Amino acid sequence: MTQTTDINRQILLASRPSGAPVAENFNLVQSEKPTPEAGEVLLRTIYLSLDPYMRGRMNDAKSYADPVALNEVMVGGSVCRVEASRHEDYKQGDWVVAFGGWQDYSVAKGDELLKLDNNMANHSHALGVLGMPGLTAYMGLLDIGQPKAGETVVVAAATGAVGSLVGQIAKLQGCKVVGIAGGQSKCRYAVETLGFDYCLDHKSDDLAQQLAKVCSSGIDVYFENVGGKVFDAVMPLLNSCARVPLCGLISQYNATELPSGPDRLSLLMGMLLTKRIKMQGFIVFDDYGHRHGEFSQQMEKWLLAGQITYKEHVVDGLENSVSAFIGLLKGENFGKLVVRVGPDELK
Amino acid sequence: MTQTTDINRQILLASRPSGAPVAENFNLVQSEKPTPEAGEVLLRTIYLSLDPYMRGRMNDAKSYADPVALNEVMVGGSVCRVEASRHEDYKQGDWVVAFGGWQDYSVAKGDELLKLDNNMANHSHALGVLGMPGLTAYMGLLDIGQPKAGETVVVAAATGAVGSLVGQIAKLQGCKVVGIAGGQSKCRYAVETLGFDYCLDHKSDDLAQQLAKVCSSGIDVYFENVGGKVFDAVMPLLNSCARVPLCGLISQYNATELPSGPDRLSLLMGMLLTKRIKMQGFIVFDDYGHRHGEFSQQMEKWLLAGQITYKEHVVDGLENSVSAFIGLLKGENFGKLVVRVGPDELK
Repeated sequence: MTQTTDINRQILLASRPSGAPVAENFNLVQSEKPTPEAGEVLLRTIYLSLDPYMRGRMNDAKSYADPVALNEVMVGGSVCRVEASRHEDYKQGDWVVAFGGWQDYSVAKGDELLKLDNNMANHSHALGVLGMPGLTAYMGLLDIGQPKAGETVVVAAATGAVGSLVGQIAKLQGCKVVGIAGGQSKCRYAVETLGFDYCLDHKSDDLAQQLAKVCSSGIDVYFENVGGKVFDAVMPLLNSCARVPLCGLISQYNATELPSGPDRLSLLMGMLLTKRIKMQGFIVFDDYGHRHGEFSQQMEKWLLAGQITYKEHVVDGLENSVSAFIGLLKGENFGKLVVRVGPDELK
Repeated sequence: MTQTTDINRQILLASRPSGAPVAENFNLVQSEKPTPEAGEVLLRTIYLSLDPYMRGRMNDAKSYADPVALNEVMVGGSVCRVEASRHEDYKQGDWVVAFGGWQDYSVAKGDELLKLDNNMANHSHALGVLGMPGLTAYMGLLDIGQPKAGETVVVAAATGAVGSLVGQIAKLQGCKVVGIAGGQSKCRYAVETLGFDYCLDHKSDDLAQQLAKVCSSGIDVYFENVGGKVFDAVMPLLNSCARVPLCGLISQYNATELPSGPDRLSLLMGMLLTKRIKMQGFIVFDDYGHRHGEFSQQMEKWLLAGQITYKEHVVDGLENSVSAFIGLLKGENFGKLVVRVGPDELK
């Protein structure tokens, strides 16, 4: 069934996954539409963002954010329209960015929302190139990575929401950019459309050798969003004074135990020491939320000038969110994954 | 035998250690005094600094600095007096800091030297509180660690050349300071003389529990100079946005292979990510050599005002350097380890 004016479809966390999430970890239910109280607005979800960090919220582990409770709605950023407003800054029909979760309707306090230009060409971009993934790429690369012209920047998940922007911004800084992606068609896209200098297929058996070959002067910035065997290939190539902004580790989100030994913790620390490397984790809204204005101004300029290309992978229907999310963790999406939950105008 | 006017005693690297260095890895020989060429000076070593980084130079491994070649003089910072000068800026009798190595006499180009005030009260301080270890503590803590008043700073090797200064500088910033040292007498000294809030004995079986207890609000800055089981105890206590300046890993310098598994590399990276931690290695002269002036001005003020206490462990005689260095790697020194190689005035 599709979005209606009176039923609130919701996808709940039914059970916690052990390893990769499966369909049974989620539960699609129908509830009543919530009612806004004073200072709140009722929102209808138009687009839902699906992002790798959501896997972490499914665990019952202390992390930077609280886990989703069992039988609660899965969390997520969304682009919504105001259905009813009890907040003076919002009126019916307004477009906003909210943290509405995997459902048709939600309520939010007015001051938790980001107002969008109602005439914006692509409102869904507020979940990608102009939203959280864009800010992540921009701040992680420029503020922590500090790439200089002529340096070599490596980024994995090279056609993903964040990686594709990291590589393009690095090219705009005059860097040599090497992407890593899953499969030949993504690699071709990274080079031919995004303008990366090279893009390697992480499914190749000789990834480490290929990477060493194309990074003949070593690696100055590695934008880390995957971990695992990609990091293993990157580690020996890092130059003195390299910077490693750390924004995600998708390869290990489904891990149920640590890999077997030897224990390379001391190896990593020894390398950071002798090569004077900075490795720094960041959570974009906590660390850089206050710089969103500066970012969106610059990114809008680049988009208008055609200097940044952005690709979305749009899945239709809230009911398909679960399979799309499971696919995201396997790298099956091609571009920023967004679910079209409802139409712009609901009759 | 002691220093003479005509023989150059030298300690050479005879063989590369496997694990902890032993006396047989070194060879004391007698050579002729070298002769300075134009632009050079002949130096007589008064004090030789012994520091943990020297263990790394004994390996035949690529690192930030070249290894010492077999049958070459062991490297090291030294305080020397000019015996003969062919450089216009230096005259006989001048005191300088050089990188003269484990020997009585060396030659150096004038521009490789740091001139000392000939009337300085303790010339050996130029190898410690006012030299490389001081700059390491000052820049690593203040520039990378950026401690704020009220935060908790943990430092290991708490009575060593670097650690003792890190803790005292952190106290001057208004931080709570927890040291870790080997043995009760060092711990008492850290608290009673250096003014640390706590100091724990790393030889205790329950170090992790003790550390958790005294760091009841977690750890904001961990100044890493040892690694190993101290880091294991620190890791779970690191707060969000903690900073980990990484200046040494003495506990693993003698390791011949990686510890057995599980492989915690992914655990460390996951923690850096979710807690938004910065871990950064540095090599002090490469990263901060240009800020030596700013450092020494501030440190001299603190010393004059009695706000920084500094302890040296002076070993007499070049021939005792080997056993002193072997002891240093076992934590047997108490204070900055310096060898008195020759008298101020040699008759």
